[in-house]
Amino acid sequence: MIKLDGFADVGALAASLPTADERARAEAGVRQDSLTKPAGSLGRLEELAVFLAGWHGCAQPTIDLAQAIIFAGNHGVCAQGVSAFPQSVTAQMVANFEAGGAAVNQLCQVSGAELSVVALDLETPTADFTQQIAMSAQEVIVGLNQGMSAVRADGDVVILGEMGIGNSTVAAALCAALFGGPIDQWVGRGTGADADAMARKRAAITTGLARHEAYLGEPLRILQAFGGREQAAICGAIMAARMHRIPVILDGFICCAAAGVLHAIAPTFTEHCMVGHMSSETGHRRLVEQLDKRPLLELDMRLGEGSGAALALSILRAAVACHNGMKTFAEAAVSNR
Amino acid sequence: MIKLDGFADVGALAASLPTADERARAEAGVRQDSLTKPAGSLGRLEELAVFLAGWHGCAQPTIDLAQAIIFAGNHGVCAQGVSAFPQSVTAQMVANFEAGGAAVNQLCQVSGAELSVVALDLETPTADFTQQIAMSAQEVIVGLNQGMSAVRADGDVVILGEMGIGNSTVAAALCAALFGGPIDQWVGRGTGADADAMARKRAAITTGLARHEAYLGEPLRILQAFGGREQAAICGAIMAARMHRIPVILDGFICCAAAGVLHAIAPTFTEHCMVGHMSSETGHRRLVEQLDKRPLLELDMRLGEGSGAALALSILRAAVACHNGMKTFAEAAVSNR
Repeated sequence: MIKLDGFADVGALAASLPTADERARAEAGVRQDSLTKPAGSLGRLEELAVFLAGWHGCAQPTIDLAQAIIFAGNHGVCAQGVSAFPQSVTAQMVANFEAGGAAVNQLCQVSGAELSVVALDLETPTADFTQQIAMSAQEVIVGLNQGMSAVRADGDVVILGEMGIGNSTVAAALCAALFGGPIDQWVGRGTGADADAMARKRAAITTGLARHEAYLGEPLRILQAFGGREQAAICGAIMAARMHRIPVILDGFICCAAAGVLHAIAPTFTEHCMVGHMSSETGHRRLVEQLDKRPLLELDMRLGEGSGAALALSILRAAVACHNGMKTFAEAAVSNR
Repeated sequence: MIKLDGFADVGALAASLPTADERARAEAGVRQDSLTKPAGSLGRLEELAVFLAGWHGCAQPTIDLAQAIIFAGNHGVCAQGVSAFPQSVTAQMVANFEAGGAAVNQLCQVSGAELSVVALDLETPTADFTQQIAMSAQEVIVGLNQGMSAVRADGDVVILGEMGIGNSTVAAALCAALFGGPIDQWVGRGTGADADAMARKRAAITTGLARHEAYLGEPLRILQAFGGREQAAICGAIMAARMHRIPVILDGFICCAAAGVLHAIAPTFTEHCMVGHMSSETGHRRLVEQLDKRPLLELDMRLGEGSGAALALSILRAAVACHNGMKTFAEAAVSNR
């Protein structure tokens, strides 16, 4: 795996992205049409099987290793009172992930994902973006490289999630900076902000956008301005997965906001990404439209930590199982129309 | 398990339906609020866990046995040229289910359901409802009893599906008769009817509704008028599951149309039923509204054979896994807000 030395390396990667194997896609499509069902009747399961075939470069792809990675970071903007939970909860939840007690642990077990947790310098939150730039350029590069190195080259699918008290504020700031529009469209309740905390979130983002106006033209500088480390690491993981042609399942608002940075650099950067679910967090629907994705699930979830993406893996596994396990009309001696 | 002797027995059952255990529901809700996540952030997974708790009468329900049952039948209305496939495909697909080669076999394997297939007198299709009543009252009772006896008393959830060339026409006729409205709203492409076959479907239903006008006031007589055996058996299975307080996952348009018969008898009859997915078959969205349900998945599937319901079992399993496996704030030493 390459190691990034500066923002220019990201641009160079964006200009030379590996693409899906069109021949494998075509062969997978032919297979789908031969299976014992009316053509197209498995809907998105058929699309998923063809999608996976393209990225794996194999007409009958398999999912042997599904790697789920949660990146955790802390955020200086918590000083503005934007979250319903104290910042100490980030580390406490990392311990909970490691002990197997969180939602994502159970969801990974059900869907068959191998979970790892990467805590990113939790004792040193990023700077408060209402006061200064959240991260130095070097901190962004370190975060990107941490994300890249967390991805296993031998995986068949990567599931991404995050944990970080305050990071729905960071994500809303990223979205407002990347995609514009009224701030209210991007600000949601996160872990359960009350009206006062919501007002503080909006104020913090308004202040940050004004303060960092000079950074707003370039996606990686936007990431630098607002943070955080886990968003940088998610970008790195998406990049590494792309280099290995491993499809990615993104989680909800915060994870997709990080992906939005890469999408703003080049829309093709997130072609290998699926969105696992439509979160009920304000802003996710609009963000998903910006990413030009259609989530696999919509179950009113808004937990983060990779939960919706881990759950969506079951859908992908079902798609692959049908694709590989079903008999063709000829094999089953079923009359086709 | 009781055995039905006549339509009056169904009415008697409807008047004495077992209900969910409110205490177990309440206890499950309290547990949900203690788990390490913002309250409500698992959305419908939380609702599903509480739903299952209520029907199982247990604050921490489990899914040890998930029983998937496909009922297959043949339909005289096929003589009207309503399907893209020949009627022989019903038996061929039953053989495919038994050999493990169909979509539902793979989906049951992924989600951990035990699949059984009940072929209902395939060599004797019901009568063509454009010419006469599809089934005798006795045939309806036999079908109901076959469905009831297929349900295992020791199951934790029942997944229902169907197979029967021509049965999207039967389902559309049932819906039009049960719920009214323009026929076009209920008639879809089924396995892939072309414009001519669609016209024949509409014509058959129009003819049938006019011919059997005297039957339209009573749900079980509507079932008798239009058929088929698999719809009767699905009704029986829903009834048996209710008597055992086993939750049911319904599949798409045809399966839900059968459930519509019971819902028309008493809306409380289908309280223990979930709808696994929103089918892309025309009419399913409207039908689901009539049943007052919100499907768990929407993946553009329209295959039938229990495929969407079997896939949705993964969501229910995830809900149960989170409910039982997550640590509480106290257990994990995570600060609550």
